[in-house]
Amino acid sequence: MAPGQVFVLSGPPGAGKSTVGARVRQAFPDLAYSVSYTTRSPRPGETDGVDYHFVSREDFLGKLARGEMVEHVEVFGNFYGTSRQAIADTVQDGRDLFLDTEVNGGAALKRAFPEGVYIFLVPPSPQELERRLRGRGTESPENIKERLARVAYELAAAQDYTHLVVNDDLEQAVSDIEAIIRTDRLRCARRFEQLRRLWGV
Amino acid sequence: MAPGQVFVLSGPPGAGKSTVGARVRQAFPDLAYSVSYTTRSPRPGETDGVDYHFVSREDFLGKLARGEMVEHVEVFGNFYGTSRQAIADTVQDGRDLFLDTEVNGGAALKRAFPEGVYIFLVPPSPQELERRLRGRGTESPENIKERLARVAYELAAAQDYTHLVVNDDLEQAVSDIEAIIRTDRLRCARRFEQLRRLWGV
Repeated sequence: MAPGQVFVLSGPPGAGKSTVGARVRQAFPDLAYSVSYTTRSPRPGETDGVDYHFVSREDFLGKLARGEMVEHVEVFGNFYGTSRQAIADTVQDGRDLFLDTEVNGGAALKRAFPEGVYIFLVPPSPQELERRLRGRGTESPENIKERLARVAYELAAAQDYTHLVVNDDLEQAVSDIEAIIRTDRLRCARRFEQLRRLWGV
Repeated sequence: MAPGQVFVLSGPPGAGKSTVGARVRQAFPDLAYSVSYTTRSPRPGETDGVDYHFVSREDFLGKLARGEMVEHVEVFGNFYGTSRQAIADTVQDGRDLFLDTEVNGGAALKRAFPEGVYIFLVPPSPQELERRLRGRGTESPENIKERLARVAYELAAAQDYTHLVVNDDLEQAVSDIEAIIRTDRLRCARRFEQLRRLWGV
């Protein structure tokens, strides 16, 4: 069986990764995802192995030390990470995997899975990004200022990505990513078996 | 300006290249095409420089000898060919070019423009191809037999193409190719200038 593909959606904070990502998953229910590992406690309603793999700090640091995490972040003292083996197993199974992650995570995934499809999502302009971050109501003015300052740095990362999608209009951005996934599935390298089956060659 | 892309649609006879190609051109009116050179006489209503560049046999053979034709065929004693320079100029101008051609022409284009997008169109099955060729009413039974025999050979050429589209349902095939063109236009390498303009970086 032809291996599956790794699709990674990344971009600066406020680009709309979660919203766009959720819509793409709806459009392609067959896309696998990777359940992250975290050291934080489950919130009410969260299920171990579904929302996250909830592990102890000791377990997490062990996985990290053994190089089992393809990417990880620490947020407010809690670790979050993605298992390299889980991704490799899914792809080996012939399934496509879709991940959204922040820019450093995207770079780490690119090093581990260089043949993947890396989609960089950008807000249409600095003005619009500022408006969106303010609109969340959860970001302090200092936070917003810092984030905007980081964008130029994060935009430079786009050159390691395969595709660039501007999130000006949500429908357009979702449909751009749908075209990217569909196109990857039309690559000759992925379809030879189908060709042989159809034609008996 | 970022250069344009060369999109080539090819496949065995009867795959539906002309029908699918015409629909794709309708969907993307900005796609440039290459006016072929031919030694045959203009038919009523055909305009020189629009339908074809009508040239003498001597002119054509001169162009061929000077390597100016990226691909050519001889059909019923008439030559048809595509100018390498016309394609290079269009792409250099930042315009995307869409060509449909038979399998040998596709291979020649691939050698000349290896970075292009090469779409191989196949009929869904040998049975369906036979039905379509008979349906044309213009093919002798011997012709049909010969064409079917050539398909296995031509399918092997698919491995040099970037994408494979099965023409089972016309709408689906057209929309697959639309996704392929759209995805190419989303490649980071083609969008950096837009990113710089939007973000002033």
